[in-house]
Amino acid sequence: MQSRIVTLTTDFGLRDPYVAEVKAVIARISPRTRVIDITHEVEKFNIRMGAFILAEAAPFFPRGTVHLAVVDPGVGGQRKPIAVQTTKGVFVGPDNGVLMNAARSQKIQAVHEIANPRFTLAPISKTFQGRDIFAPVAAHLAKKTASIRELGPKVVHPLNLSFAKVNKRGNRFRGEVLYVDGFGNVVTSISREDLSQNGQGATAKLKTASGIYNLTFREAYSDVPDGEPVALIGSHGYVELAINQGNAAKNLNLKTGEKVNMEFCPSSSTLSGNPS
Amino acid sequence: MQSRIVTLTTDFGLRDPYVAEVKAVIARISPRTRVIDITHEVEKFNIRMGAFILAEAAPFFPRGTVHLAVVDPGVGGQRKPIAVQTTKGVFVGPDNGVLMNAARSQKIQAVHEIANPRFTLAPISKTFQGRDIFAPVAAHLAKKTASIRELGPKVVHPLNLSFAKVNKRGNRFRGEVLYVDGFGNVVTSISREDLSQNGQGATAKLKTASGIYNLTFREAYSDVPDGEPVALIGSHGYVELAINQGNAAKNLNLKTGEKVNMEFCPSSSTLSGNPS
Amino acid sequence: MQSRIVTLTTDFGLRDPYVAEVKAVIARISPRTRVIDITHEVEKFNIRMGAFILAEAAPFFPRGTVHLAVVDPGVGGQRKPIAVQTTKGVFVGPDNGVLMNAARSQKIQAVHEIANPRFTLAPISKTFQGRDIFAPVAAHLAKKTASIRELGPKVVHPLNLSFAKVNKRGNRFRGEVLYVDGFGNVVTSISREDLSQNGQGATAKLKTASGIYNLTFREAYSDVPDGEPVALIGSHGYVELAINQGNAAKNLNLKTGEKVNMEFCPSSSTLSGNPS
Repeated sequence: MQSRIVTLTTDFGLRDPYVAEVKAVIARISPRTRVIDITHEVEKFNIRMGAFILAEAAPFFPRGTVHLAVVDPGVGGQRKPIAVQTTKGVFVGPDNGVLMNAARSQKIQAVHEIANPRFTLAPISKTFQGRDIFAPVAAHLAKKTASIRELGPKVVHPLNLSFAKVNKRGNRFRGEVLYVDGFGNVVTSISREDLSQNGQGATAKLKTASGIYNLTFREAYSDVPDGEPVALIGSHGYVELAINQGNAAKNLNLKTGEKVNMEFCPSSSTLSGNPS
Repeated sequence: MQSRIVTLTTDFGLRDPYVAEVKAVIARISPRTRVIDITHEVEKFNIRMGAFILAEAAPFFPRGTVHLAVVDPGVGGQRKPIAVQTTKGVFVGPDNGVLMNAARSQKIQAVHEIANPRFTLAPISKTFQGRDIFAPVAAHLAKKTASIRELGPKVVHPLNLSFAKVNKRGNRFRGEVLYVDGFGNVVTSISREDLSQNGQGATAKLKTASGIYNLTFREAYSDVPDGEPVALIGSHGYVELAINQGNAAKNLNLKTGEKVNMEFCPSSSTLSGNPS
Repeated sequence: MQSRIVTLTTDFGLRDPYVAEVKAVIARISPRTRVIDITHEVEKFNIRMGAFILAEAAPFFPRGTVHLAVVDPGVGGQRKPIAVQTTKGVFVGPDNGVLMNAARSQKIQAVHEIANPRFTLAPISKTFQGRDIFAPVAAHLAKKTASIRELGPKVVHPLNLSFAKVNKRGNRFRGEVLYVDGFGNVVTSISREDLSQNGQGATAKLKTASGIYNLTFREAYSDVPDGEPVALIGSHGYVELAINQGNAAKNLNLKTGEKVNMEFCPSSSTLSGNPS
């Protein structure tokens, strides 16, 4: 029988031996477990960024996948190590919010503290619990030699991160930048669902701290000429600001966390460019 | 029975969730398929660079390997998604040339458009077809639950990229820089075959836009003292310009696409330094 | 029966096709071998850095693991390709010291030159022996179609790198910086064992070329306020200098190889902060 997949989301980077040590511990406990990297390039200590990336990627993995996420500035301190069981999989990491965006988008069944020394390495370092606590627990959960209940006591109120709510008034939306990807595409908190309830248009007026921009609203980056800005529904269901073959974040001067105001303007001529 | 390998060549980078989503889709469809990254660090939108790297790496993979390559500035636009069957494997990606250098160096048997919705995700985003079209098709081909003919109609003229021909006159060669690797080694379009037909020498005169250099022609980087330039036949059969433990691209002021003129000068004393 | 794991430690970087070619050669020879990257981000030609990272990660891998390490400025030159058998696994790479720190920390049983053409690719390039010599040998050792004795003659004196010894006088230690990790944590050569023999304290005075610093000696980064420096025993057993959620290397002006003088000062009040 094949073991379940373990995914890794960390801020460890790829130069140091840390990711390999996590994989080595998993391989020792569960030789058949397949490990898939989500990313190790989360900005150091940026829990929200880790939470966002994990929440984007997790839905595409097979049922039963164990997601290990370690962006853990409080390692060795008061925050608890936890595991979260959902209807679709398990999430393992610190109780600092990094797991919860992804877990909440599935149905959470139980949250347990990791306290049982049977499933962790000894001694546990206070500086590298990704290796000493989370890796062995993920391996045992993937191999099914541990159940989530055996790990430790229930956690009643795991820490949740709050992301900015979207403010809607007719065709006007006030949200924030959730993420800027490596292409410079700007992912906003305004979702496909927000738009469908409030109508939308073929063009959008974008107001940011740095200026006002008029954008065409289309489906593909290449629906506008090279170098032109475009708004579209990105591959994860959020309104995305992009520049065809260019870098929108740089050109529109936008960073994660910044406020964006968008006003969608209907236009009869180019409605076929709208998402459907 | 073991599934065939799927390789990945993209410009996605390793920070965003995109590579993981591609791997997740493959794992869901074909849990036993092994995925090997060729690179995700192709310069954004640089189709030629993706084509070059894939063509270098592909010959070393086992027969039957499925190569997925996504450097796709026209994603969601007019360019077709295609699959190319060769005698050695299959190539899956956009019809923009990124697949064809690698495919042509094997014997191409058929090229088909990917149009059959049975083998793709629904709905297909217009911004991330690596995940929605290419990943599921690669997984089905690796698992043999799809044959290339089932994917869609034949493509008669897939797009080919033209790389500069090498110009030869006696011992003089005019080519271009195909690639600069992470060590700063400069891979030119002049091949081992070019040299063997036209004679060669123990030293070479290199003319570039920035100057004239005299190089020793040897077999190993360390055949010259530290910091000295050397020309040799690199590990992929092209004339390569290097500096022992240094960066040739920086020192010789060369970038991908630049013209290089080389004149090889025979010398009786050091012929043993020639490639054989 | 499952094949043994092969790990990779190189200075190849992740952009070029080189890592994929190594993995392709291994997959062709031993399809069931699982390859785990330790790192490909060793600074180019920095043998000591490769040796350090491999020595950190290797102990966590299962018995029988084959470790391939290629940081090889002398590729194709006089240095021999070797394989080192220890009681826990096998190390494969150039005889330039990169393997030996990791191998010595296990019990070395035999060191052999790689000379038998049965286990290498033909022809062997003089510029990429990671692919042509080390990858096929590692695959054969993992698959057990080669034993270390069959590879070639014994090597009596493999090259060892010498790292600075730690100088102790009472509570004063003189060592050097072994490594700076991606978080900016500074790993010194002073070990937990050094400290336990000579006593320690709740605070430490650090003298470097750039100044004198007073540090608290604790167990976890978060045992001090954000932005404060701390000394602790890191996850590999060395004294580490860190700044909670900050970059110690930048702030303390320390690089690999630099000398550090530390004087530990006992303090009755905070002894619970000491490593135990």
